[in-house]
Amino acid sequence: MIRKVNVSDGLSQISEHWDPHIAGALNGQHVKLAKLKGEFVWHKHDDEDELFYIISGELIIELRDNILTLKEGEFVIIPRGVEHRPIAKDEVHVMLFEPDTTVNTGNIETELTRRNLKQL
Amino acid sequence: MIRKVNVSDGLSQISEHWDPHIAGALNGQHVKLAKLKGEFVWHKHDDEDELFYIISGELIIELRDNILTLKEGEFVIIPRGVEHRPIAKDEVHVMLFEPDTTVNTGNIETELTRRNLKQL
Repeated sequence: MIRKVNVSDGLSQISEHWDPHIAGALNGQHVKLAKLKGEFVWHKHDDEDELFYIISGELIIELRDNILTLKEGEFVIIPRGVEHRPIAKDEVHVMLFEPDTTVNTGNIETELTRRNLKQL
Repeated sequence: MIRKVNVSDGLSQISEHWDPHIAGALNGQHVKLAKLKGEFVWHKHDDEDELFYIISGELIIELRDNILTLKEGEFVIIPRGVEHRPIAKDEVHVMLFEPDTTVNTGNIETELTRRNLKQL
């Protein structure tokens, strides 16, 4: 059964910040939706490139040598191995594309680490 | 150099319908942007699942046993092997996420087939 996904409806089912939910799967990749607020942890993904697409709000992504500010309708791809830290001063809604092996905190294990993500 | 991509800016650089441009690459996948108008051809991708995310407009995707109508902020994943035909009564702007091997007309070779896509 092929069904469409409404991103706003999906986001409305998410209550916690920094808790990505799986909205779709294809070619070994996951499409995830998440609500972000506050400062995340510095981390990297050794084997996975990660795409952040902004649905609403403004997301800062700190890199060791640069700071990116992403607004609605913008995306960035963080290549594997690159340390980064997302910061959302106000709530941000994002869509993520990344391999289905990706853990949100990458090489770091913290209380923000999420495994066994919920499916929307 | 990690740079962000503004999807509207990318779409503004596309003049032709059914001519996907590459906006990003990660994990063997491409992020593509395209403007669609009119009826495409029935086709399938034997080895690639394909995601259509609607940036603006309304896209109909005919399947052999169903018809999907996708609006702004909605996406669908068409699994490999499933015949489909996109139809845009008015112009539709889409973001595609699919393996970098994917050809737009899949198993069909027509005048709409595009290879060696432009990079945004």
